[in-house]
Amino acid sequence: MNSIFHRTSIRKYTEQKVEKEKIEKMLRAAMAAPSAHNQQPWEFYVVTDKQMIAKLSEATPYTKFAKAAPVVFVPCYRTDGPAPDYFEIDMSAAVENLLLEADALGLGATWMGIAPGKDRMEKVRGMMDIPSRLQPFALVACGYPAVEKTQENRYDEARVHWVEEEEAK
Amino acid sequence: MNSIFHRTSIRKYTEQKVEKEKIEKMLRAAMAAPSAHNQQPWEFYVVTDKQMIAKLSEATPYTKFAKAAPVVFVPCYRTDGPAPDYFEIDMSAAVENLLLEADALGLGATWMGIAPGKDRMEKVRGMMDIPSRLQPFALVACGYPAVEKTQENRYDEARVHWVEEEEAK
Repeated sequence: MNSIFHRTSIRKYTEQKVEKEKIEKMLRAAMAAPSAHNQQPWEFYVVTDKQMIAKLSEATPYTKFAKAAPVVFVPCYRTDGPAPDYFEIDMSAAVENLLLEADALGLGATWMGIAPGKDRMEKVRGMMDIPSRLQPFALVACGYPAVEKTQENRYDEARVHWVEEEEAK
Repeated sequence: MNSIFHRTSIRKYTEQKVEKEKIEKMLRAAMAAPSAHNQQPWEFYVVTDKQMIAKLSEATPYTKFAKAAPVVFVPCYRTDGPAPDYFEIDMSAAVENLLLEADALGLGATWMGIAPGKDRMEKVRGMMDIPSRLQPFALVACGYPAVEKTQENRYDEARVHWVEEEEAK
């Protein structure tokens, strides 16, 4: 089964802890993403401490559900790569890989946007004491799904424009 | 096999055309990506016209190899969604899905950055006559691989920071 067509945002989790092996596999997936000039700007905080998770869940009005997540990832980016314009674009590909791998491992996850909002970024930095060489990019809550949810079909052929050879038309 | 751990940038292609069914599957994958407030900002030009592909390959110093690609995707974003700060972050997740699905289908692809560079974006807009309601985000060259290439292992555990419960330490 292809996780791309199965993954969906899961916001309710069982109390089961996520195995360290699975967390590491997700991190391997994230770091397998492409990046501009192969700059690999990413670092990842992996939070299983309940108090810190509770704190992080207050970061935005959309993150409250994360309080009950067994693990919250805080993907951050280094600010010293060769292609700064692409830091957030690179991070996004890495986070998508993280979500897909969660799905492949039988887990559920939800991506919560932090960057590029400076206020949110500084709030998360303060909560976690993240050093200035890193920028908090997002929060990703993860755990074993306590709900069954199927991916909605988002395909819309009106969004596709073909520029074909004359003979193919 | 999991495409996340197999995908790598492929810049040399055989002359075999890419089946329309496979192109559509890649577009379905791209549109299955998550987006901020589910805004789904994406539209996709799919270019198989050789003249237009040759033109696009002149967009940047890094896109010349694309001249020999059987198909070039031009993912663009709409500028009327509810979360403009996330347009490019959303597009990036969609492009990563596109690349992963290419790999899953036995194809090879390479992501070429266009946004957020205004000059590059306007150059691509001009070449393709892209309307002002859309912003060109990237180019993705794709075809059947003419090279065998394996993914490099990018995992680096020094980039992982654990914030654990006391008893887990």
